[in-house]
Formats: sequence, structure tokens, C-alpha cells
Amino acid sequence: MYRIGVDLGGTNIAVGVVNENLELVKKLSVPTGATRPGEEIVADIAKLCVDVCKEVGCELEDIVSIGIATPGIANHDTGVVEYANNLPFSQFPIADLLKAQLGGKVNVKIENDANAAAWGEACAGAAKGTTNSVMITLGTGVGGGIIIDNKVYSGFNYAGGELGHIVISVDGAQCSCGRKGCWEAYSSATALIRMTKEKIEECRATGRKTVMLDAPKISGRTACDAMRAGDEAAKEVYDEYIKYLASGIATIINIFQPEVISLGGGISGEGQSLIDSLLPIIRKEQYGGGVVKMTDIRIAKLGNDAGIIGAAML
Amino acid sequence: MYRIGVDLGGTNIAVGVVNENLELVKKLSVPTGATRPGEEIVADIAKLCVDVCKEVGCELEDIVSIGIATPGIANHDTGVVEYANNLPFSQFPIADLLKAQLGGKVNVKIENDANAAAWGEACAGAAKGTTNSVMITLGTGVGGGIIIDNKVYSGFNYAGGELGHIVISVDGAQCSCGRKGCWEAYSSATALIRMTKEKIEECRATGRKTVMLDAPKISGRTACDAMRAGDEAAKEVYDEYIKYLASGIATIINIFQPEVISLGGGISGEGQSLIDSLLPIIRKEQYGGGVVKMTDIRIAKLGNDAGIIGAAML
Repeated sequence: MYRIGVDLGGTNIAVGVVNENLELVKKLSVPTGATRPGEEIVADIAKLCVDVCKEVGCELEDIVSIGIATPGIANHDTGVVEYANNLPFSQFPIADLLKAQLGGKVNVKIENDANAAAWGEACAGAAKGTTNSVMITLGTGVGGGIIIDNKVYSGFNYAGGELGHIVISVDGAQCSCGRKGCWEAYSSATALIRMTKEKIEECRATGRKTVMLDAPKISGRTACDAMRAGDEAAKEVYDEYIKYLASGIATIINIFQPEVISLGGGISGEGQSLIDSLLPIIRKEQYGGGVVKMTDIRIAKLGNDAGIIGAAML
Repeated sequence: MYRIGVDLGGTNIAVGVVNENLELVKKLSVPTGATRPGEEIVADIAKLCVDVCKEVGCELEDIVSIGIATPGIANHDTGVVEYANNLPFSQFPIADLLKAQLGGKVNVKIENDANAAAWGEACAGAAKGTTNSVMITLGTGVGGGIIIDNKVYSGFNYAGGELGHIVISVDGAQCSCGRKGCWEAYSSATALIRMTKEKIEECRATGRKTVMLDAPKISGRTACDAMRAGDEAAKEVYDEYIKYLASGIATIINIFQPEVISLGGGISGEGQSLIDSLLPIIRKEQYGGGVVKMTDIRIAKLGNDAGIIGAAML
């Protein structure tokens, strides 16, 4: 039994076949060409669906369902992308269009990409076996996906779960969304890079020594690596970053008390040491600590395939 | 058809009979005596149930169900209060005890008091007719109740929905929960009173005029009333309070995108003018503004009876 998951991103379209064990058996991708008309993007998705079936050796008729993980506001009841920031979608009936392109042979579901990734982790990844979980993606931004009662929760208008845009510091750092002080402005990889650059500038100005001065390019890893090498200035950056990240996670726990929070995105590549840094702060800050069963904080398992697997399982 | 709702508070126990139109037809109350053994509190609840039936002219056998709204962590699956701050409950099987006291004649359900109030507003109040709603209670603290898919959501350990304990200002004002910067420390009536007192002290120290200097007692209303009377210093307090309250509400919208957020508690007595002050900020700060259907912000309707009605409808 096969399902197809489509991860439609601003840069690439990835289409994969998922088997009954929820394993990704084959994946193909092409550049999105995000400025093209939506219909051309759908035509490419349809072609990838046909191609990936050929590679696996199955027919479209063998595909139980197709799911699309898309940026923006995805109405999972109608299959319409109501709006997307980085793709030319406005009230775009992507599910019906793809179904028609494929001869009406397979049903197509859609979901917002961060939500689909959370659903993937809940079905086959770090939150497998749980009923309620939250996934937080620490990448260019901070994404969120909420699973309640074994379903994606996205509110009455399909726009919920924007966990990066909870304000953790009123009047704080400017966020790309227009608000000030959003969690994303403190806990994304972009924010960590900003904090790292600020510390390097501070060291340069004061003549303080740090190995980060010699870094050829500043990434989300620069401070983490330097900190592990014993650099004091880097440890200050890392500790500051962890403080904000832990505060936001404790807030998510106080709201949802989910069984599992999984952390994905580039920063989650730090692995267990990231969780070891976060846990003491989270346990101290969460409500009911010591009285209630504790939310498990885990590194996401499916990496970049979470969206495809989640979409396939919609 | 009658149901009974019990609102068990730190100060009073209120027991009411709710009819099939979800109207509270009769209410009785006694002091809680919060330091007594739990069994004595349950005995008083049982007596009130019998008494209130007599007053309404029905028999216990006519009661479809009894619900208890209790402080603390209420396991609505087992009927056990796992822990309460202000009552002597620890793993206390309150539902079974009450059922036994009433001769096993009526089933007893329990829910946390803030959650029960949110459920009451969803069944019969400001959020009637909606599937997903959030209630925020602006009283001594900031309470929260989350309704998803026509059910109370409280997480895998029944401790979720602590919306007062989301941090809106990292390293900010001290909260009674131990964290710094909780929403409760900025948006409760207690916080408004603190801000009012601070402004009065500032005026006293600088010789600035404000009618608030003459207030015999500072309450949550002092700044609101003085602001409406044209007092500039009071307006500064009010605007500051509104800024924090609006920020938290926009955050709740970005997370849940519920159909309705209802505002209860003492501060909600300000009525529509409170909402009129909040809306421009919320609409500007919420994610997807202008693209998605908007969450309606309403004043709660049931006042102090929300808990009883919500408990009756569990």
C-alpha cells in the first residue's frame, strides 16, 4: 500500500512515495520556480507523481492518497490554499487541480507545511504513539505544528499554530511579521546568527578574545561549535539563545501540556546537547512542575522528510 | 431535565441547578472552609445538592448529571483532583466520594474551574454556537480555558490551559508562579492595581497632578474611571495595561485562531470600551490579519455563574 506526499517549498518541490510502514521509499524533486503561475507548479507536481510511481514500480491506481504540504494558509476541508507569502497562491484550489491533472484517479488532501511536518513526526517520528504533541521548527524562522486528538489543529480559519509569532518580549526585537518581540526573533537560526554577530562586534570593539572572530562565515553553528571548544564569548551567546528558547518551550508546555514537544529545523542538529541545555530551565519554569507528568522534549526524527511523510498520511 | 453544577472555590462552595435551556434556576452557597479535610467539604457539597433539589422541587433521581468545577489539576477521566494549591487536595477522588455520599444515584464529573467557566461560556454564553473558543479570566490572576472540537482541552496531564503563565516579557515582572514576565504579572487586576499605585507614587514624587491621588482605595477600576474623567496620568496607566493585554490576546490568536475569545473576570466589567481599546492593537499584531477570518473578541456573558453552568454541562 503506497501513499504520496508532496512537500511544496519556496525553493523545491519534493514528491515521495511512502509505504505501509510509513517509510519514504523514493523521493524526486525539481525546483519550484516560485514566480510561475500556480497551474504550472501543479503540472510539475503531477508529473513528479507519475514519475515517482514509475520509479517505485507501481501505478497511480495503487496510490491510496496524495497529500500536499504547502506554505501559507491551507484549508484542509476544501483543499484550497487561501494565501501564501512566497508562492503565487490566493484562493488557489490546488487539491482539485492536482486531482484533475491525474485524471481524477486519486484523492488529494492539503495541509500547511509546518503542520504536515508535525503530523509526520506524530505518525512516524519523535512523537509516534502520542495523541497530543507539538513540533517546533528552529530554522530561518520558528515554525509550529499542533497535534490534538490525533489531528492537526489549525483553528477555525486554518491559520493557527503560528508558534513563532507568540510575543516573548513586548517591545522587543523586530520580527519579520511586523510584531516586535516574537519568539521567532529570538529563537530562529536567523536570531542566533544575529546574536553571534553582535557578540563578535562587541568583542572586536572591546578587544576581547574569541575564536568566533576568525570564523569565515557566521552560521547557526558558529557559537555552538566555539562554545564547545571552550570559548567564553560564544558560551554567552549560546546561553542567551537557550534562555529564550527554553522560555518559549515552557510557555508552550503551560498552554498545551502535550505528551511530546519535538524540535526540528537546522538548530535541532545540535541534538541531545541542545535538550540537555534546555531541560533544567524548562523544568524550573513550567507550571505544575513536580506535580504533573512531564512533557518529553525530543529531537525530531524525520528531518527534511517530515513534511512528505506527514502529507502522505493526511 | 435538570443538571447540577458545583463551583468549588477557595472561599465559597456554590451549587446550582441548571435546566434544559442551560439557565441557572437556583443557587445555594456556603463558605468552603478551605483548611478542613476534603471529606468534610464533600459532605457539604452533597448536602447543598440535596437542599438545592428541594428548593427547585425535584428529586436527586431527576438530576441527569452533577459536575464539579474545582481549583487545581482535575483529572476529568478519573474524577480525581490530582493537586490543588488552595484546597487540601492531593490525589483526591472527589467525584467518587460525592457520588457515594449521594447514594450512588448520580454520575459526577469534574473539571478545573477556569476550564469549566470556558465550557460554560461555550455552551451558554459568549462563545455559544462555536466549536473552538478560548476564555481568558482577568481577575486576581489571569486564567485560561481552551475549548477545541466542543471539548475542554487540558493536555495529557490535565494541567494545560495555564494561559496566565505564558511569558510575554522574558526577565520581566515577577509572577506568583515563580517565573518572571508571565502575562498574569501584566494583565491581571492585581497587575493593573500595581501599575496604578506605581503611577500614583510617580505623580506624588514629581508633583504631577492626578485625581488618582485622592482615591480612597486603589482597585482595578481606579485608573479606568480616572481615565474616563480625563485624567492624563490614568490614561498612561490604562494604555500600558491595554498594550500588554492586547499583546497576549494577539499571541493567543496566533496560536489558536479560535472563533471567539471571551474575556471574563473583574476587569471584563469595563465592557465594550475594553474591547474597543484592545481591538486596534490586536488586529495590527495578529498573524494573517486581513487575509483570514478574524477571531471575535467578546465580553463573557455568564459572570460568576459560568463555572456552575459549565460544570453542569460536563
